[in-house]
Amino acid sequence: MPSIILVRPQMGENIGAAARVMDNFGLDDLRIVDPRDGWPNEKAEEMAAHAAPLIAKAKIYDSMADAVADRSYVYAATARPREANIREVSLPDCAFDQADSAILFGPERSGLTNDDLTHAHQIVTIPTNPKNPSLNLAQAVAVIAYQCSAVNESPDSSQEPLATGEDLQYFFNQLEAELSQKGFFRVPEKTSHMKQQIRHMLMRADLTSQELRILHGVIRALK
Amino acid sequence: MPSIILVRPQMGENIGAAARVMDNFGLDDLRIVDPRDGWPNEKAEEMAAHAAPLIAKAKIYDSMADAVADRSYVYAATARPREANIREVSLPDCAFDQADSAILFGPERSGLTNDDLTHAHQIVTIPTNPKNPSLNLAQAVAVIAYQCSAVNESPDSSQEPLATGEDLQYFFNQLEAELSQKGFFRVPEKTSHMKQQIRHMLMRADLTSQELRILHGVIRALK
Repeated sequence: MPSIILVRPQMGENIGAAARVMDNFGLDDLRIVDPRDGWPNEKAEEMAAHAAPLIAKAKIYDSMADAVADRSYVYAATARPREANIREVSLPDCAFDQADSAILFGPERSGLTNDDLTHAHQIVTIPTNPKNPSLNLAQAVAVIAYQCSAVNESPDSSQEPLATGEDLQYFFNQLEAELSQKGFFRVPEKTSHMKQQIRHMLMRADLTSQELRILHGVIRALK
Repeated sequence: MPSIILVRPQMGENIGAAARVMDNFGLDDLRIVDPRDGWPNEKAEEMAAHAAPLIAKAKIYDSMADAVADRSYVYAATARPREANIREVSLPDCAFDQADSAILFGPERSGLTNDDLTHAHQIVTIPTNPKNPSLNLAQAVAVIAYQCSAVNESPDSSQEPLATGEDLQYFFNQLEAELSQKGFFRVPEKTSHMKQQIRHMLMRADLTSQELRILHGVIRALK
């Protein structure tokens, strides 16, 4: 079952409700990036009810990169269409069939940023009413946790292992440093968008560890 | 879409959250039987957020019988196995395909009684973790409202134009020529397999024309 990663969540109640419904559907790895009200959070514990153990062992991170470092496939649950070019799949067609995967959920008000989304291989949208599309955070976790458990484990055995988040970050950082040094980012205002575009397109490729090694070789060779 | 009937709900917050998520999934007929704290309920209005109109037009009933009087098919969402001999279907197999239907949700603590269930044609169960099976009321409404709306197809969003085969070949040829010149393909027997791997991984990214231009720039910059 995937890890659930709450990115900069604001309300402790929502964290607790998310943990509770994760437990209802048999998900047990809760990760939180930079919770607004710090950690531990009393309201989260209260709302979690019987899922208190899940709150107690939640992992807290300072950065997205750390939170996904050991995950090799990252889904982002976001309703918003972005200019970011990321593969998009709508429930119920999302199979959640990748091993060592994680699902990102953005902050209540603002959602995931384009920078957050550079860590994602795929966007999962929940089809909602266009007039009121925005789900409460814990409701979004409920629907996706339900869908994860409904599709059951369909192990894809014969696949090469995917590169981990940590390996991907390392590669992107190397590539960007190299490009910077060579003067590729000429227009400062466009630099971060350009970096995002490069990351998005390579994330869409679902790179394996071995392919990432090839890309490192490619960069080294071109220098 | 079915009506949602909350039977003797206790917490205004749960009523509001249920209304909000109904609206998220395009359900708009909320009925409430004998709400514990009376009606109207300020907390319900607060939690409903943008679904306030749905709260405003909610129908309040004294009895189950009145609430389902104009419904011709009644589902009961309950996790508990009962001695009552009612047809039972588990999500996601429940089709919710009956016209003029309603779905009953019981009170937070006690659930639907056997008397309540005499109004139901069918029990819908949500498959949950046996160790922590009991969903929060609004979470149960979320999952079922999602499943009701999931019957509908989701429309495809318009995408950036993809790079043409010709453009891709041109890019790969350029890249390979560059890599050749830099001595990247050291082992002749492995050259064609290596080229295939690089092409495969980038083809998987479904590159747009614009992204391909960025990649050309990346290669140029690294030289």
